[in-house]
Amino acid sequence: MPELRKDPILNRWVIISPDRGKRPQDFPAPTKKLHKGICPFCRGNEKSTPPEILAFRPENSHPNSPDWTLRVVSNKFPALRIEGEMDRSDDGLYEKMNGIGAHEVIIESPDHQADLDLLPVGRIEDTLLAFKLRMLDLKKDPRFQYILIFKNDGEAAGATLEHTHCQLIALPIVPELVRGEITGAQRYFDSKQRCIFCDIVSLEKKTRLRIVTQNERFITLCPYAPRFPFEMWLLPQFHSDRFEDCDAQDLSQLAGLLKESLMKMRVALGEPAYNFVLHTSPMNGNNGRHYHWHIEIMPKLTKMAGFEQGTGFYINPVLPEVAAETLRNTKV
Amino acid sequence: MPELRKDPILNRWVIISPDRGKRPQDFPAPTKKLHKGICPFCRGNEKSTPPEILAFRPENSHPNSPDWTLRVVSNKFPALRIEGEMDRSDDGLYEKMNGIGAHEVIIESPDHQADLDLLPVGRIEDTLLAFKLRMLDLKKDPRFQYILIFKNDGEAAGATLEHTHCQLIALPIVPELVRGEITGAQRYFDSKQRCIFCDIVSLEKKTRLRIVTQNERFITLCPYAPRFPFEMWLLPQFHSDRFEDCDAQDLSQLAGLLKESLMKMRVALGEPAYNFVLHTSPMNGNNGRHYHWHIEIMPKLTKMAGFEQGTGFYINPVLPEVAAETLRNTKV
Repeated sequence: MPELRKDPILNRWVIISPDRGKRPQDFPAPTKKLHKGICPFCRGNEKSTPPEILAFRPENSHPNSPDWTLRVVSNKFPALRIEGEMDRSDDGLYEKMNGIGAHEVIIESPDHQADLDLLPVGRIEDTLLAFKLRMLDLKKDPRFQYILIFKNDGEAAGATLEHTHCQLIALPIVPELVRGEITGAQRYFDSKQRCIFCDIVSLEKKTRLRIVTQNERFITLCPYAPRFPFEMWLLPQFHSDRFEDCDAQDLSQLAGLLKESLMKMRVALGEPAYNFVLHTSPMNGNNGRHYHWHIEIMPKLTKMAGFEQGTGFYINPVLPEVAAETLRNTKV
Repeated sequence: MPELRKDPILNRWVIISPDRGKRPQDFPAPTKKLHKGICPFCRGNEKSTPPEILAFRPENSHPNSPDWTLRVVSNKFPALRIEGEMDRSDDGLYEKMNGIGAHEVIIESPDHQADLDLLPVGRIEDTLLAFKLRMLDLKKDPRFQYILIFKNDGEAAGATLEHTHCQLIALPIVPELVRGEITGAQRYFDSKQRCIFCDIVSLEKKTRLRIVTQNERFITLCPYAPRFPFEMWLLPQFHSDRFEDCDAQDLSQLAGLLKESLMKMRVALGEPAYNFVLHTSPMNGNNGRHYHWHIEIMPKLTKMAGFEQGTGFYINPVLPEVAAETLRNTKV
């Protein structure tokens, strides 16, 4: 059973997940290339994954048959387990609880060669709709505090399978970084009675220094203090703390801007490995006034080194104004 | 001029260092191998580095001549600059200051094939003495709040040069992670009137579950909630918040335990790339009662992926009790 453990100094939680664990000799010093055998995410290999939780397929098509355009399945090697109780325990100095959670995979296309940003906008919209539907379903489970959706694309970004996919992890705690964002946003709201993200969008539209692209309802910009070169944030221009409140029109506009932003990154940077993460409000708590959901896109161009790990203090070699200008001027 | 910038939401500072910056096409999607040309850190190539700040060499040997065993030089591509004023400025939403700081390289051996842990203990002691001497010197500069010493060993750990070396960065702010440790340690002290690190050492010696190795004055253990598989912390068994207060006997004992810990990692894990970072007290502030310096050793066995980046929440596939047992039983 995996465990969640809290560092007593930083109050930083980690997942200890020995079932994903390896013996020392399983960690080759030079990193392995992505697995090139049979791909469990390809059309026709539906039996290689756990049964589907959600799929977009024609009416009358059978679950787990090859006739699909998008599938959501449980992760075969989950970091957290869906069954069980939390069993939080505290022995004085140390604190832990069972690693209860959900870990799912959203396979955006049956085609092994597909890339999310090269799919038609309608299919990207389907992907975002799948995010929303899975969130709404998992929110019913009172054990979960937070649902994180993210994408690791490419080996350098931590992907272990080449076939395009996103991941969803439902957690029994609110992760430190999200909690930090919420605390910061709350502090700002308490002093100014405004949403800090809304103020950022408004300031960025005034200076235009760090805007990458925008449409009617969404905007992509390089943040003022980015951790990574060419980091982008995609935010709604309207105030909303919960991604899952998006309606069909929002998802359509979001799909268009996500596609454009990722394609600009692809063209400007030469198809880099990348991650994106969706930050939305925790399940519980009253964050409607001060928090603002968004997607953080991080091309994988530099390595985390001792300095960053040792300080939580990132060295970024590219000014966001330069990154934004490059991306803004990239035609896709 | 590099800049320090603070994210207004998380209060997280980053260095924006455009002089280290690259054009998009300079970021190859598959990572470059380490540079194989002339090595500026090898004996005989002393002119390829900035002039030495400190060196261990025989009496009567000239500075920057080939006759040395350890050299400290400025980083030729510094993340921060030593000259100038801080010029902190605040435009309401955003805040920044000049990237003032020092960035030095400690070359532990003139031999290109050397590895820190394979050097004789006396030479490792020299390395630790160089850390201390540079710290004591840089502490005289009132602009600096923190001195971080770390090692990136191997390409996967972020090293750009193969020749063994450590780095030192003097910062005008206290990094977030160190500040977090200090805040946590202060909170514990306020409630229990004891140092949390001392309590951890004491508890770990009682259970012996996570001890890797120890000697009279120091101990290496796998922390209870490690971020990375086989992560180790090396701590003094006596209470001290400042590494630079170590006397000659401490440094000698520390060198022995550092060598043994790194060699165990090398043998158990097959010469992995790794990072270590030295966490000591900031320049200012009164942390003598509650903080406790230590070295964090992190073999580079997994990649930071979207999940970790998106949450500050690490997934670690190896229980620290298993890691500690493996390392403890590894003969070196």
